[in-house]
Amino acid sequence: MKSPFQYAESHYNMFINDLKEILRIPSISTDSAYKTEVQRCAQWLVSHLKQIGIENVKLVQTDGHPIVYAEYFNKASNPTVIIYGHYDVQPPDPMELWNSDPFEPKITDNKIFGRGTNDDKGQLFIIIKAIQSLLKTDGYLPCNLKIIIEGEEEIGSENVIKFIERHSQILTADTVLACDTGMLDEKTPAITIALRGIVYAELLIKTSGHDLHSGEFGGAVVNPLNLLSKIIADLHDVDNKITLPGFYDQVSELSDKEYSMLKAIPFDENEWLESAEVQGFKTEKGYSLVEAITTRPSFDVHGFLGGYSGEGIKSIIPSGAGAKFSFRLVPKQHPEDIIKSLNTYLESKIPSMIRHELRILSSCSPVLVDINHPAMKAAVDALNTTFEAKTFFIREGGSIGVVTEIKRILKLDTILMGFGLVGDAIHSPNEQFGLDRFKKGIETVIRFFNNYSKYHQSFS
Amino acid sequence: MKSPFQYAESHYNMFINDLKEILRIPSISTDSAYKTEVQRCAQWLVSHLKQIGIENVKLVQTDGHPIVYAEYFNKASNPTVIIYGHYDVQPPDPMELWNSDPFEPKITDNKIFGRGTNDDKGQLFIIIKAIQSLLKTDGYLPCNLKIIIEGEEEIGSENVIKFIERHSQILTADTVLACDTGMLDEKTPAITIALRGIVYAELLIKTSGHDLHSGEFGGAVVNPLNLLSKIIADLHDVDNKITLPGFYDQVSELSDKEYSMLKAIPFDENEWLESAEVQGFKTEKGYSLVEAITTRPSFDVHGFLGGYSGEGIKSIIPSGAGAKFSFRLVPKQHPEDIIKSLNTYLESKIPSMIRHELRILSSCSPVLVDINHPAMKAAVDALNTTFEAKTFFIREGGSIGVVTEIKRILKLDTILMGFGLVGDAIHSPNEQFGLDRFKKGIETVIRFFNNYSKYHQSFS
Repeated sequence: MKSPFQYAESHYNMFINDLKEILRIPSISTDSAYKTEVQRCAQWLVSHLKQIGIENVKLVQTDGHPIVYAEYFNKASNPTVIIYGHYDVQPPDPMELWNSDPFEPKITDNKIFGRGTNDDKGQLFIIIKAIQSLLKTDGYLPCNLKIIIEGEEEIGSENVIKFIERHSQILTADTVLACDTGMLDEKTPAITIALRGIVYAELLIKTSGHDLHSGEFGGAVVNPLNLLSKIIADLHDVDNKITLPGFYDQVSELSDKEYSMLKAIPFDENEWLESAEVQGFKTEKGYSLVEAITTRPSFDVHGFLGGYSGEGIKSIIPSGAGAKFSFRLVPKQHPEDIIKSLNTYLESKIPSMIRHELRILSSCSPVLVDINHPAMKAAVDALNTTFEAKTFFIREGGSIGVVTEIKRILKLDTILMGFGLVGDAIHSPNEQFGLDRFKKGIETVIRFFNNYSKYHQSFS
Repeated sequence: MKSPFQYAESHYNMFINDLKEILRIPSISTDSAYKTEVQRCAQWLVSHLKQIGIENVKLVQTDGHPIVYAEYFNKASNPTVIIYGHYDVQPPDPMELWNSDPFEPKITDNKIFGRGTNDDKGQLFIIIKAIQSLLKTDGYLPCNLKIIIEGEEEIGSENVIKFIERHSQILTADTVLACDTGMLDEKTPAITIALRGIVYAELLIKTSGHDLHSGEFGGAVVNPLNLLSKIIADLHDVDNKITLPGFYDQVSELSDKEYSMLKAIPFDENEWLESAEVQGFKTEKGYSLVEAITTRPSFDVHGFLGGYSGEGIKSIIPSGAGAKFSFRLVPKQHPEDIIKSLNTYLESKIPSMIRHELRILSSCSPVLVDINHPAMKAAVDALNTTFEAKTFFIREGGSIGVVTEIKRILKLDTILMGFGLVGDAIHSPNEQFGLDRFKKGIETVIRFFNNYSKYHQSFS
């Protein structure tokens, strides 16, 4: 009998053919024209999971796109892992920049090109093919599984969060595994241990019953765009710190250990500047570039509403205006605290004669994963062994709503063990995935399941 | 032989019929579909001026709509008055709010309704009919005239300014008369003696080669919308004064006499608040509402460019952004000084690694008319006599480019003796003009010519 690693090796071409099949289904969640394709993709996954030996698989219809939910149970003494992934993809536009058909996967230079090759069909298949390799050789899995594969990750995960909330009693587990993030480079594995949270808001201000002429009224009425500028500008001080009262109260400095971990990560500022296409950076006083984007909160305006932005001249004082902006939050900051402080701040800045409305369009808490969890050790060891390299714990500046919600609802950390690279062009034309990483990913996940089962037993 | 006043009285119906004829021509300058109508209106005016006894009339073609130019000369010892008016009108939209056809004038309650009844065909006809009354009775005019009637006032007067510049040697005169402004109420005549100037600019900022994700980059790059907010917010201090270095250097406080003149003008703050549909006002510290909008400069943002202002969420740090804003200037402030100071200010606020461009979209100097000019006395006396009331000198917060340019090029003040009322709905549906004011206006202009001729002689 072969080992799961031998199975993976010898079935590599089959794995690639399976992957190509799902890649050919244009499961674009944001475009309602593709609704039946999204459905078809979910159904394909249901069949495929059954085919590899997961018997208990369901297609769960939602108010949006369906969720594929599966369970595998072997022994109560084994740890239970929730597998999270998504089968929906971003639209392929702009089409003209693709060198090949986004939905006809093409392999060149040992890389597979096409929409979803990386995000997330390719990475999801790493887990599916690890499961297959274990089931087809050992005949069982060393961990129990609860597999959640959603079709709405690219549009906000609304229905999977409802699903998790509704079934929180069933979704008990010891950890969560997701392959949807990245490595530092193709030789340097990484696990994302922190994500920033977000409060994304829209502030609307109404000053007058109708637009006013700036010649007749300028200098005597509150101009809502000037007022918004003031509100926004005053949210940063000269040190580029955010002035919202209490904003940093819960933010703690990195521990010496955390700081050394951050410092140890290879980070090339010039490369970063090039990728951002900026001439320089500007951070909160006292913090380096990498600290600023991963360990410190931020405040950005995304756009203004109202007024005249057409060609030429219109001497208007608009009757109202708005701004979209967001705060990125770091561990221990709570969206509710920030929203409360923001409301108090707005009351203090907006004259009582002016009506305003603050709409919170989105909010999620920051995430900081416990690196001492046995599942984390299992993941690190699996990566170290497979890549013959040291795995780095990295912090990401962005937010992944599902991870936050899983933590909130199920009280579980997610092991974000990803195999993507910055150059993989996810969300862009010519999305790609290196097949070396695909192969090594499968080996890693096999090792992860085996490690975790062992560590869990000894830990229990 | 009848007096000009008797002539005006007995030919009143004829005057109204003539006015109706020109009102029926939809001379909408901004809409190229009406180009031939604008031309037809100019031609109608040429014929009409000849018909009333002005022999030297020309239709001057321009790069845009034509100018009607006429001259009348009687005696070198008489003063020469440039008459300025415009025959173009605003579009009538929204059509559904009109109670009658905008281009089929209708008289109800002794008011004439239709587009242009006030602005400016109705008011221009006050001067034309005064000239006619004098010529048809006395047989001559007590003043020499240079009449300029343009067809582009509603779209920026570009070609009439070029015309004045080109013919500045010919356009020598002692004063300028325009009937295109308003009275305080139907019993209280007024002459506008001051207009604010303007510097209207667009500031463009480019920070990056492409839009950036606020999760990945927020806190480390300059967000152009945050930067614009700061630039704008810092242009006002806590006292609502404009912080541009040197901004107030040329601004002088009103003299005691000017201040008493301003205080004497009946002004109802509540009425103003209602017309602005605002809950309150906010002015530069130390200045009343009426002072703020007529004697003090102001700074307003009109709109922002760039970023995301659609529905929902887009976590974008735009690669660039812009703002449209303007400064309203008061007497003695020079647009060039303001622009220079603005550029210095921007250099100090924008990090050198960020590219920016300041585009001046429009600028004109403020206007302050010499109230001691004999033509002004002639106008005041004519108004006082006709309306049996005291004429007020008023200041307007808006800008009239032609008046500024006439001052700049010809070094002549314009007597802004208007007969409109706030309720006349110029630029709006159901534009109207009270025929009492039309009649009294004609009497006033007859008296003005007579007075001015006399005062000029005794002054010379």
